[in-house]
Amino acid sequence: MFLYVFVVVESVGEGVDDIKEGDHVLTIFNGECGECTYCKSKTTNLCAKFRVDPLQSVMRNDGKTRFLTQDGKPIYHFLNTSTFSEYTVMDSACVVKINPKAPLNTMTLLSCCLSTGVGSVINTANIHQGSTVAVFGLGAVGLAVILGAKTRGASTIIGIDINDDKRIKGQRLGMTNFINPSELKTSVHEKISEMTEGGVDFSFECAGNLDVLREAFLSTHDGWGLTVVLGIHPTPRMLPLHPMELFDGRTITGSVFGGCKGKTQLPLFVDQFMNMEDLKLEEFITHELPFNKIDQAFELLIHGKSLRCLLHF
Amino acid sequence: MFLYVFVVVESVGEGVDDIKEGDHVLTIFNGECGECTYCKSKTTNLCAKFRVDPLQSVMRNDGKTRFLTQDGKPIYHFLNTSTFSEYTVMDSACVVKINPKAPLNTMTLLSCCLSTGVGSVINTANIHQGSTVAVFGLGAVGLAVILGAKTRGASTIIGIDINDDKRIKGQRLGMTNFINPSELKTSVHEKISEMTEGGVDFSFECAGNLDVLREAFLSTHDGWGLTVVLGIHPTPRMLPLHPMELFDGRTITGSVFGGCKGKTQLPLFVDQFMNMEDLKLEEFITHELPFNKIDQAFELLIHGKSLRCLLHF
Repeated sequence: MFLYVFVVVESVGEGVDDIKEGDHVLTIFNGECGECTYCKSKTTNLCAKFRVDPLQSVMRNDGKTRFLTQDGKPIYHFLNTSTFSEYTVMDSACVVKINPKAPLNTMTLLSCCLSTGVGSVINTANIHQGSTVAVFGLGAVGLAVILGAKTRGASTIIGIDINDDKRIKGQRLGMTNFINPSELKTSVHEKISEMTEGGVDFSFECAGNLDVLREAFLSTHDGWGLTVVLGIHPTPRMLPLHPMELFDGRTITGSVFGGCKGKTQLPLFVDQFMNMEDLKLEEFITHELPFNKIDQAFELLIHGKSLRCLLHF
Repeated sequence: MFLYVFVVVESVGEGVDDIKEGDHVLTIFNGECGECTYCKSKTTNLCAKFRVDPLQSVMRNDGKTRFLTQDGKPIYHFLNTSTFSEYTVMDSACVVKINPKAPLNTMTLLSCCLSTGVGSVINTANIHQGSTVAVFGLGAVGLAVILGAKTRGASTIIGIDINDDKRIKGQRLGMTNFINPSELKTSVHEKISEMTEGGVDFSFECAGNLDVLREAFLSTHDGWGLTVVLGIHPTPRMLPLHPMELFDGRTITGSVFGGCKGKTQLPLFVDQFMNMEDLKLEEFITHELPFNKIDQAFELLIHGKSLRCLLHF
């Protein structure tokens, strides 16, 4: 649910040696300090420095914010970045230097949705040529999964959304089939099983809805299906899966920021994406508004009218 | 919960060419037909021929049982094998020919608990030299996980059981630490986190209890922990895990028969185990009784007094 802005470095603090004034950078909520046990492990993109409350984040070195106070109370950083402002101060672990020739208006998508979607395909699921894939929820993250699956050579990419407008958007990015659940007489997983001889190899839950998550789980082929959860689930409900269902050989896992180690992996993504002419990243940017219309940008997002909106000052 | 018998082939039916009269064999409930989509996939040990009700199983070629009827109703096979009898008739996909020099009294453990435990370590978790492991529930399956983890070079193998008798048994097979939850003031996962700097790499749930399953899940290290569910959960409850907990980088999966493809993998296990003198498989066979005392054998099992009991006619 982010909106993006261009980011050029204005100044750097003491001890920062990988970024300098004038650098073109991406801002990432999921920092990479490079020093902790997690950062040193090849198996995760979590970072000990940022395993804290994302809604009230502070600078790790002194535990303080860098914004003004309001009524004597600190204004916290949001998700370590706070990019809904003309200027922000961030931990250098959340700042990724990229190729200065890269177009910032599309590459800024790598700050979240594009890294999450494409990264989950590559890092988390590691899908292969000829894989069959179902993507539940075609917001910007789901569409980025479609894009990633296409670049990996998936043979079947089924998109699922109750918003019929997503049919054309998905097709432009590589989706091969579209299901609108409201037009079905059966459940989505039964329909997918019928279309794919028993289920897809990989499903991605990008809706943040537990009933959808269950459909995504059952839509994979028993024996080897993997479901990757990308949606945020602010619910008191637990996973609607029975323990014995694990014995059908399906696995479920979560993916934060697509499993990307931001400072390590994103500069490589930028270079690769710059050389892929048919990538159509501009499909993700549906609107552009001045910053003082940010409320309107949120309305568009909430009602499924936009994917990403560029804000400018 | 099986009890074992020696099995030597008495006769074979038409069309069976991989087994002959007099062969020493293992019986497996999880057959391998070798022909279906599952058997041809490297990623699963499920078999389309045996994806049916295990409590009322029949011969697949004609849909009938091979036992007498009782009051006009068929006596079904149990788990495709029905080995609580002096003679049984089975699908050849459930019959595994092994080295005739192998000791049947211990190798028959491969018909379930040993394959499930050791197989889950090798096939499902694929644990490596130096891994840290927690095993919840030290029945025969849990102890077989310990044995498997030891053969793979795990550096820390923590056994957890409320039955204190399992402490010595576990140690004999390679367990490095024992936790009796009833002696703890904290939760088991907090204790394990403290012992292992944040959690183990792999946990195995062999208790068939959902509260234990949750402890097993949380006992793994965030970022890369894998929990393998081996326990049977005959409960209406769903998984006690919140969807957002998947974002901590822990994964959960189930393992049926340790992920072993029976006819392919078990003969190799037999040959390997025959050459491993310190394997102590005899530790698993705690009792031996005549067949007419089978009820007594079950009592021993239910009360945690036995691991496996050999029955003889």
